[in-house]
Amino acid sequence: MSDENDILYGAHPVEEALKNPRRKFVKLSCTLNAAERLKEFTQPIGIMPEIVNPKVLDRRLEPDAVHQGMILEAKPLRQPRLDQIEHAGIVVMLDQVTDPHNVGAILRTCAAFGVTALVTTARHSPAASGVLFKAASGAYEHVPFVKVTNLARAMEELRLEGFRFVGLDSEAEVTLAKVDRTPPVVLVLGAEGKGLRELTRKNCDVVAKLDFSGAIRSLNVSNAAAVDLYALSH
Amino acid sequence: MSDENDILYGAHPVEEALKNPRRKFVKLSCTLNAAERLKEFTQPIGIMPEIVNPKVLDRRLEPDAVHQGMILEAKPLRQPRLDQIEHAGIVVMLDQVTDPHNVGAILRTCAAFGVTALVTTARHSPAASGVLFKAASGAYEHVPFVKVTNLARAMEELRLEGFRFVGLDSEAEVTLAKVDRTPPVVLVLGAEGKGLRELTRKNCDVVAKLDFSGAIRSLNVSNAAAVDLYALSH
Repeated sequence: MSDENDILYGAHPVEEALKNPRRKFVKLSCTLNAAERLKEFTQPIGIMPEIVNPKVLDRRLEPDAVHQGMILEAKPLRQPRLDQIEHAGIVVMLDQVTDPHNVGAILRTCAAFGVTALVTTARHSPAASGVLFKAASGAYEHVPFVKVTNLARAMEELRLEGFRFVGLDSEAEVTLAKVDRTPPVVLVLGAEGKGLRELTRKNCDVVAKLDFSGAIRSLNVSNAAAVDLYALSH
Repeated sequence: MSDENDILYGAHPVEEALKNPRRKFVKLSCTLNAAERLKEFTQPIGIMPEIVNPKVLDRRLEPDAVHQGMILEAKPLRQPRLDQIEHAGIVVMLDQVTDPHNVGAILRTCAAFGVTALVTTARHSPAASGVLFKAASGAYEHVPFVKVTNLARAMEELRLEGFRFVGLDSEAEVTLAKVDRTPPVVLVLGAEGKGLRELTRKNCDVVAKLDFSGAIRSLNVSNAAAVDLYALSH
């Protein structure tokens, strides 16, 4: 397996990738059972899987990776540049959110809410990317995923495209429900504990919070993203 | 360490437990730095920590446990019986949701939305409980956590108390926004992939879905719980 390719495992990530006409496949390795299950996706595009023992798959991944009998090696998806992102909807931007489970869950939520792109500063190792693809449950095939090295510069570039920026911060004075959510708009989320970096916050047009009534007033970052997107789209 | 006690680690779980007057503590082990950080919580209640090397803490937990220099052993919290659950708000019920990261994140979200109890069928090993406490980020001290062996019987019992049941299912015909959410009400969530079991679904008064516009129409179970609770409380 090449480190430059995407290594996808588990039913949802592999099936959604096989259905994605933009994907170029290098190799599909699976058990006999999984090959049977994947037939409806592999036959139309003429892919012949390599049939292997489940233990062979175990050895190719991290010990706790739930591969469900299938690993797909594919060329990375070509992602849009910042100036190619659609203006019609909401863009989500992550400021140093690194945990691949969280980023994957956020990507899945973005797909559900029709978010037009996820912009992130984080780079993941091949193993962490596999975890991200798995947590995204196929959403990686649907939501443009734009990695940038400098978030402040990316914000500047998107601002020139007409985007406004809504930062999320549990200490803010305005509640998210009161914020103008007319597109093109970017929802900016910081890492748990640290929140938005000072410069990121300064670059936002408005900083808002979710309003909670209970004893704990912050959510896991992927749960916060889900509620924010629901609040912005209703 | 006794398997019957709660083993809490990491700043939020340990701090919230130390602030909980209902907790009985067995032993607090921490690094010198962490002891300094915890002083504001330990001094008022007269707890003297055992000062240890971080490596000693590493050895007491699973390899990837982020203990932040502190492990607290405490007697388990006494939890209410089903007939003692408050009727004033929303109760969340989990049908065979087992992943401790997800259950912990849901507990945290329940605390943020002032949920009156979390009812679950899942039993966790001591190591998994530690992960759950960590993911709950202190919320375990605030939300009654009721484990039951038979969900159908628990639903019967809560129904006698006047609770109605709203099941969540992505295939339902009604959207959650249209459902009567007057307390006492129970929100019932199933495991990812499997969803609600047949009997659980039958026992619900109404089964509803979240309405999504995007390419993927289901969320990670903790994200779904967060959006459901937001939708029910707005």
